[in-house]
Amino acid sequence: MPRLRLLTAGESHGPLLTALLEGLPAGLRLDVAAIDADLARRQHGYGRGGRMKIERDRVQFTGGLRGGETLGSPLAMSVENLDHGVWRSVMGPLEVDAEAAAKRRLSSPRPGHADLPGGLKYGRRDLRDVLERASARETAARVAAGAVCRQLLAACGIEVRSGVLSVGPVSVEEPREGFSFATLANVDDASPFRAVDPSLEEKMTQAVDSAAKKGDTLGGTILVAARGVPPGLGSHVSWDRKLDGRIGQAMLSIPSVKAVSIGSGVSNAFAPGSLAHDPVGWSSERGFFRERNRAGGLEGGITNGEDVLVILFQKPIATLREGLPSVEIDTKATHRAQYERSDVTAVPACGVIGEAMLAFVLADALLEKTGGDSMGEVRRNLDAVLAEQKEF
Amino acid sequence: MPRLRLLTAGESHGPLLTALLEGLPAGLRLDVAAIDADLARRQHGYGRGGRMKIERDRVQFTGGLRGGETLGSPLAMSVENLDHGVWRSVMGPLEVDAEAAAKRRLSSPRPGHADLPGGLKYGRRDLRDVLERASARETAARVAAGAVCRQLLAACGIEVRSGVLSVGPVSVEEPREGFSFATLANVDDASPFRAVDPSLEEKMTQAVDSAAKKGDTLGGTILVAARGVPPGLGSHVSWDRKLDGRIGQAMLSIPSVKAVSIGSGVSNAFAPGSLAHDPVGWSSERGFFRERNRAGGLEGGITNGEDVLVILFQKPIATLREGLPSVEIDTKATHRAQYERSDVTAVPACGVIGEAMLAFVLADALLEKTGGDSMGEVRRNLDAVLAEQKEF
Amino acid sequence: MPRLRLLTAGESHGPLLTALLEGLPAGLRLDVAAIDADLARRQHGYGRGGRMKIERDRVQFTGGLRGGETLGSPLAMSVENLDHGVWRSVMGPLEVDAEAAAKRRLSSPRPGHADLPGGLKYGRRDLRDVLERASARETAARVAAGAVCRQLLAACGIEVRSGVLSVGPVSVEEPREGFSFATLANVDDASPFRAVDPSLEEKMTQAVDSAAKKGDTLGGTILVAARGVPPGLGSHVSWDRKLDGRIGQAMLSIPSVKAVSIGSGVSNAFAPGSLAHDPVGWSSERGFFRERNRAGGLEGGITNGEDVLVILFQKPIATLREGLPSVEIDTKATHRAQYERSDVTAVPACGVIGEAMLAFVLADALLEKTGGDSMGEVRRNLDAVLAEQKEF
Amino acid sequence: MPRLRLLTAGESHGPLLTALLEGLPAGLRLDVAAIDADLARRQHGYGRGGRMKIERDRVQFTGGLRGGETLGSPLAMSVENLDHGVWRSVMGPLEVDAEAAAKRRLSSPRPGHADLPGGLKYGRRDLRDVLERASARETAARVAAGAVCRQLLAACGIEVRSGVLSVGPVSVEEPREGFSFATLANVDDASPFRAVDPSLEEKMTQAVDSAAKKGDTLGGTILVAARGVPPGLGSHVSWDRKLDGRIGQAMLSIPSVKAVSIGSGVSNAFAPGSLAHDPVGWSSERGFFRERNRAGGLEGGITNGEDVLVILFQKPIATLREGLPSVEIDTKATHRAQYERSDVTAVPACGVIGEAMLAFVLADALLEKTGGDSMGEVRRNLDAVLAEQKEF
Repeated sequence: MPRLRLLTAGESHGPLLTALLEGLPAGLRLDVAAIDADLARRQHGYGRGGRMKIERDRVQFTGGLRGGETLGSPLAMSVENLDHGVWRSVMGPLEVDAEAAAKRRLSSPRPGHADLPGGLKYGRRDLRDVLERASARETAARVAAGAVCRQLLAACGIEVRSGVLSVGPVSVEEPREGFSFATLANVDDASPFRAVDPSLEEKMTQAVDSAAKKGDTLGGTILVAARGVPPGLGSHVSWDRKLDGRIGQAMLSIPSVKAVSIGSGVSNAFAPGSLAHDPVGWSSERGFFRERNRAGGLEGGITNGEDVLVILFQKPIATLREGLPSVEIDTKATHRAQYERSDVTAVPACGVIGEAMLAFVLADALLEKTGGDSMGEVRRNLDAVLAEQKEF
Repeated sequence: MPRLRLLTAGESHGPLLTALLEGLPAGLRLDVAAIDADLARRQHGYGRGGRMKIERDRVQFTGGLRGGETLGSPLAMSVENLDHGVWRSVMGPLEVDAEAAAKRRLSSPRPGHADLPGGLKYGRRDLRDVLERASARETAARVAAGAVCRQLLAACGIEVRSGVLSVGPVSVEEPREGFSFATLANVDDASPFRAVDPSLEEKMTQAVDSAAKKGDTLGGTILVAARGVPPGLGSHVSWDRKLDGRIGQAMLSIPSVKAVSIGSGVSNAFAPGSLAHDPVGWSSERGFFRERNRAGGLEGGITNGEDVLVILFQKPIATLREGLPSVEIDTKATHRAQYERSDVTAVPACGVIGEAMLAFVLADALLEKTGGDSMGEVRRNLDAVLAEQKEF
Repeated sequence: MPRLRLLTAGESHGPLLTALLEGLPAGLRLDVAAIDADLARRQHGYGRGGRMKIERDRVQFTGGLRGGETLGSPLAMSVENLDHGVWRSVMGPLEVDAEAAAKRRLSSPRPGHADLPGGLKYGRRDLRDVLERASARETAARVAAGAVCRQLLAACGIEVRSGVLSVGPVSVEEPREGFSFATLANVDDASPFRAVDPSLEEKMTQAVDSAAKKGDTLGGTILVAARGVPPGLGSHVSWDRKLDGRIGQAMLSIPSVKAVSIGSGVSNAFAPGSLAHDPVGWSSERGFFRERNRAGGLEGGITNGEDVLVILFQKPIATLREGLPSVEIDTKATHRAQYERSDVTAVPACGVIGEAMLAFVLADALLEKTGGDSMGEVRRNLDAVLAEQKEF
Repeated sequence: MPRLRLLTAGESHGPLLTALLEGLPAGLRLDVAAIDADLARRQHGYGRGGRMKIERDRVQFTGGLRGGETLGSPLAMSVENLDHGVWRSVMGPLEVDAEAAAKRRLSSPRPGHADLPGGLKYGRRDLRDVLERASARETAARVAAGAVCRQLLAACGIEVRSGVLSVGPVSVEEPREGFSFATLANVDDASPFRAVDPSLEEKMTQAVDSAAKKGDTLGGTILVAARGVPPGLGSHVSWDRKLDGRIGQAMLSIPSVKAVSIGSGVSNAFAPGSLAHDPVGWSSERGFFRERNRAGGLEGGITNGEDVLVILFQKPIATLREGLPSVEIDTKATHRAQYERSDVTAVPACGVIGEAMLAFVLADALLEKTGGDSMGEVRRNLDAVLAEQKEF
């Protein structure tokens, strides 16, 4: 049995999104406001279109929680789609109005989206049947589940954060010793870009405004990091236990994230070995440590006690105002892709989703290491591990 | 039940490596020489140390095959470790000679390897207990299994190849329309670097020679690509079905691969949307197609019929002749990391392993799509899909 | 990736139950009334207590369905707990009233329930935290999901039914040739016991009345069967692919089902081989067939085209009016187990849950065989299999 | 990630059988002789045919073990097929002799075996391609892996044993309080039947001799039990975490086992609730306990600290000397099923395989509970659980 399982359901304009998180220990007291705060962070950011103002996401718990405390049973969370009302005739689960649905039919697929390959795969000629699920709206459910995992990690001394490294061409430089959790010290969640270097936000604003004016879109890169991760999560013994890979899968499952780097993974490919690796040190207070962290806290697929660092590369939003050149699927005529309400950039939000996915993977790996069915048991086993490792 | 399962076993200097590949259809006739050729390709390459000359890997089948044809039962493959003989007293499964083992004990962990985090995790104070499994030698078993998957794919019209894009600082440029399977047209498997641009091989040689002289090592980047992949593998419906993520996990599980890009995933993060996405076209012969392929053949986690393109970022080999600064785990004294026979660069080999992992993931996703328990059934269902998609 | 995934969530007196069914093909048109009818069948039956009259289960779809047709995305279903209102102060996900909760605290565990082992495992001293999830109420979510699977199977020519063989000591005899789907021909869903032999219902009524008078409870045995199952589902190649085992797991996961027999599995253990096995025949219309079906349609872990037959052995309900001897967990004093509203027997309902689980396992195995992402594709591949097998 | 994974490979007359056991903690010192002893126990027993005398199974370790101690890496075990030599021309993995293979072709399927459904599924017209994997010979690999799990359990105070309850019609009575681990006290591994009641062995001998004379075969029932299992393995929270189901799947995956009962699961279905359930007691030395154990140590899918008890129902061997009525697949003519060397009964061996599967499932569930990557860590976490549960 896997330790943690996460499934989500729900369409973008359907009644609601559901996240089901299975395998949690009992006795985790949840701060619901903090979960809603993460949902709000996902909706926030410069360059967001109108929808973000419509939705004010709030999590609701319908299973696995009693009096604010987990029971060990599957946690069922939902987030309502506030605009389902106006979409009911198009997206009703049981009934749709044929005319309304026809008006909203998508038949000119948007390049860069699941529209066309999804239509081919599932045999759907109204590509809305695909886009409604492939929409980034689905990540609200993940953010809710990730926010729960974050609280589990926090109870174990682990913190997860993110910050924007670049938007379009506006970017910070990677320092020689690699990034770190401390890189995120100046990220201001209330700022429009949640940039690692706030002094870049003005340039980022200009870049987005300029793209918006042209009907264009921008992507960017994000640092997602965790601090306080104990050594020994993940494993080298089998290809699918390696934590790098598990983190990579989770990150590449975020819409529009098309590349991922563990620590300085991209730049290390061009550096000599003498500069790429992180010398080992030891002190009686800290035990083993590294003087830099280009490995992103992972060696051989296992955490080494340093910050876990992941860089996400997000492509520009694939929905352009003018529509990219495409083909209408009935007539096969060349046709601009249909426009579906969208943002100019989603980089700030992407970091929040990245935090959620990292929190999920780390919580899963942590619980594999500690075992245990209650928070007390998890903490007790973890404390024993940490004490033992200090004596190693 | 998962469709394909792959587990490997074996230590670097143990008796042999085993790969167990479960879930294959029956009736796949295997070309064993082609598997051995992949094993040889993995061992080949400029900058390889002595071990590559010792091992001459040959696959042996002990289950799942009869008269060269798969039976549908689990395929058991093994690759002997030819130098186990001289290591028997150190690495015997049942008995070791205490003195011999003590001489070979690793107690100064090599930064960048699993040595230290693995020792902490599994409670092993002879770090050899970790390195023997974390060694890249394990990938021989994966290459054997991947070579089988490659033959399955070939029977379905799918081809998998790779080529080196860069070694250390010596690199080709990414073309504006992104890479493609055709990028690999000039890769010469007999050449020392298997470079995408053979004219760079001289500079690559110099870079490796120069690194070798300094006792340093080099990494690089590799393009792994597949052609003939039908639309509709993977899915957008759940985070862990997205094929980008599954490919990413498989690639990041390769030793030293620390970043992965689906198509132009890294460069797209800095490009505007109008240049990042691939316009849709249609013609009666080809059906739907794209004029370029920066998406790497994947949209919304689903193959779109274009070449599947993956770029691997491999860090420099973590074993340096001089040893990076480290700590002896008994005394906690600062100590150069111990040297364990190693290469200067493994970039050419890395591509072969990348092919194996891509072949495995694609075969898995293909069989999920087609279902079927015999090659005839797989082909029949696939042909029907292709015909239907052409009519879409 | 597994093909079908089923997770449920929700506590017995929480707001609602959720079922999430992932991996369905698109294009399955659902008959919602038929799902509600299965929910009603689960609630029906002689010997049910008061709760069954309170709940009138209705399924609600919140994801994966549009206009009554599946989209291929995860299907999210919920069933409201109509009495959550009166339980809110005790079972509110976010808040509970301490006093109300204290009154409803369970501290004298009921033998035969998860109360005590669950409390020990999850570290819960209010055993209600366990019983609320361990309650058979959870199976309403499974029945909803199973009813969807049943409709998928129906579209592929497969039918699933059940009937009661025995209640307490009142039992039909197993015929020498074993049971069959036809055994269920006389089961009347409107009757109190859904008995295979309606003439036994009077005796069953007497048995239940007599048990009720004594404050006792009764179990029984149920035949769950499927007809029209194609040969070739499941597999002999690996222990965890065998369909017998997968069916067995699903059935033994039903509360109170503590033994399961595939076909005449129990009686065959006492019979000679010459009588235990089912001779093979062949005719041009039917292809291969069996003259009897003691194997329950499974040989070597694979369906053989005959009816799939499973017998469930359900223990008597573990909640007795007087309470079985137990221990109060605070004082450790001997104490009768606390009474929680309950039925005298649940045998008729158990069959409905068994149908749901069998439908789920068969749908999963069928989709593994056929592959495919739309109902058209599933049917097309299945038809090809059936045609081919006829030519075998 | 699942905690323990077990895959096996190999055909009955192929070169060897392989078991790959993944997820073990490091630091488990293996007693290889004890593993070979289990292999011998599997081969032993009254009514075995000639093959059992040919094979003298010995395990070989090729991965995951160093100096007799597990490394935490996948354990690769193999068991040679000593008669592969004479079968090489028929079953060579790479080459077969067409004439030899034709002579050994199976075209009249044996009822009760995978022959026909497997041939249909995998499209094999030489049914030997199926039978070679479906053969009970495969269980030698499971017994080897199970013997490793047994040693892991033993290091945690858990013991697994089995004994024969019945052979054909010769059977012990189930006592009113149910069976127990103590039921196995008199089982003599050296005796022909390993019967729970040795006084029945004479009658069992007569029953087998009489069946043999008629060319018939016999099945039987076996008690497989574990003692010392801590409370809290498995879970009630999700259908697929319930330990009853996981044990059931493992047991029903054993060839010829067609029914399984957890504790008194079969007889409880006919008993009143007042007699079916096990009252809870408490004493300061033992903590919570039960006065009887009809539940077989499992309530709500969770171990309750009592003996885990499982009864297997094995059908008679499906290969009869005369051959059951069948059909030749080329001509479709009625034909006696072909004879493939076989035994009269396999009941004593079945218990050994049942022990292996129970040991595997319990080890998996134990490691899920304790977490941990070394035996020290596993024991430490387990001891803490046990201490805590005593205070509950």
